[in-house]
Amino acid sequence: MDRKELIRQIFEKQSFLCVGLDTDVMKIPTHLRGNDDPIFDFNRAIIDATAPYCVSYKPNLAFYEAFGVKGIMAFERTIDYIKHNYPNHFIIADAKRGDIGNTSKMYARTFFETYDIDALTVAPYMGEDSVTPFLGYEGKWVVLLALTSNKGSHDFQLTTDTEGNRLFEKVLKTSQQWATDEQMMYVVGATQGEMFKDIRRLAPSHFLLVPGVGAQGGSLEEVCKYGMTNDCGLLVNSSRGIIYASGEQDFAEVAAQKAHELQQQMAAELAKKR
Amino acid sequence: MDRKELIRQIFEKQSFLCVGLDTDVMKIPTHLRGNDDPIFDFNRAIIDATAPYCVSYKPNLAFYEAFGVKGIMAFERTIDYIKHNYPNHFIIADAKRGDIGNTSKMYARTFFETYDIDALTVAPYMGEDSVTPFLGYEGKWVVLLALTSNKGSHDFQLTTDTEGNRLFEKVLKTSQQWATDEQMMYVVGATQGEMFKDIRRLAPSHFLLVPGVGAQGGSLEEVCKYGMTNDCGLLVNSSRGIIYASGEQDFAEVAAQKAHELQQQMAAELAKKR
Repeated sequence: MDRKELIRQIFEKQSFLCVGLDTDVMKIPTHLRGNDDPIFDFNRAIIDATAPYCVSYKPNLAFYEAFGVKGIMAFERTIDYIKHNYPNHFIIADAKRGDIGNTSKMYARTFFETYDIDALTVAPYMGEDSVTPFLGYEGKWVVLLALTSNKGSHDFQLTTDTEGNRLFEKVLKTSQQWATDEQMMYVVGATQGEMFKDIRRLAPSHFLLVPGVGAQGGSLEEVCKYGMTNDCGLLVNSSRGIIYASGEQDFAEVAAQKAHELQQQMAAELAKKR
Repeated sequence: MDRKELIRQIFEKQSFLCVGLDTDVMKIPTHLRGNDDPIFDFNRAIIDATAPYCVSYKPNLAFYEAFGVKGIMAFERTIDYIKHNYPNHFIIADAKRGDIGNTSKMYARTFFETYDIDALTVAPYMGEDSVTPFLGYEGKWVVLLALTSNKGSHDFQLTTDTEGNRLFEKVLKTSQQWATDEQMMYVVGATQGEMFKDIRRLAPSHFLLVPGVGAQGGSLEEVCKYGMTNDCGLLVNSSRGIIYASGEQDFAEVAAQKAHELQQQMAAELAKKR
């Protein structure tokens, strides 16, 4: 999906919500656990319930890989289900890949050819030739880690270099030489608050994928205040706060409520910009 | 496998060779491509041929994931084959994972419980809580990216901070607060030459996983000159230079020759230290 269409979807649905499919078999309702493919059954119900309120889904590969071949099959079925039933939803594989050129090329084949997904999260540590193999696909996106939502983001991402750039700032500056805002987004954690101002100084128009609202404690209002652009420029992810809001028979219904609440807050934030 | 046993294996086999199983279906001999599981069949032949000359195997996940469920099945069969037939070989999953705590915990489950592999490569960008979930397993190792073999290693890893540390140096210093040399190794590319001196100043006893000999142009002699310790302290990886040395019927035989040549050079390097 290209940038123009993504923006169109956001304003049409009045939502920039991304639902994170971090589906853990140990956390889904007990009545599903005996099914042949409990992960897919859970995802399908969550997707059907939340699709009206979100523009994007983000399966987190860790949760699928943990179950080996069965997990990968559930991942593939989930992707197919979204693509066939909700073709206007933007799919992000949260995999945080990144390796030497010939290896990154294989990962690009996996996610952009085999699975034909819209976007992939990529780690920047290995530099240009670890990222550029993901950029040769039209309408596909690299979502590069910049300033993440976790405590460990302070260990290296905030280190200031001799030119006065913190590492995440250097990542923003350097990576803009590799790709435009039509091919690259950045991960910025919702927990980073006012840091969004610094991000927007360096990346005024790029979309930001923002995890950390909800379970991790980030504030949607603050993210919008400092991070929203005239094109919205945000995809805000919630995973646990939606998909595990209820662990009972009504899990999908409650997930829909939670997604709807977020969508309404998002519509209000979008209205402020108009 | 713990550090003591790894060192014992190295001196017994007079080898610190790791064979990289970057098995690409498009590059394996044509006579195998029609098989039901060409990736596994290729790996099995390579493993049987090279096992006497190496102490470790390093399957690169990118090459398996690219084939979806079939690729993951080939990966699982490969791991099982090594574990059952060559239980003294150290298995490293080259996956370069790293994510927020609850996600890294899932990756740790995948590689250290589901697959019961010895070691996993991990990217440091997200800091402490992205790495520590991998450290709770006895005899299992994190192989943290420090200074990689690719050109892009210059983009961020060599950036000097206001305290005079290059990023890879800060990674070495900081990560030693998280784990000892019994649980952590570092990736240092063979192409980095004299930089091994700087690495050894900061990590005098840690094992280093060294890719980049062969196809990428690194020199084994230089790596040993600056990087070898009294305990050896090195696992030197070769992938393409061994597994694709011949694309014909004799591929396994030629792979064995290449591995044997490297093993002999390694024996000579080990002798220099005694």
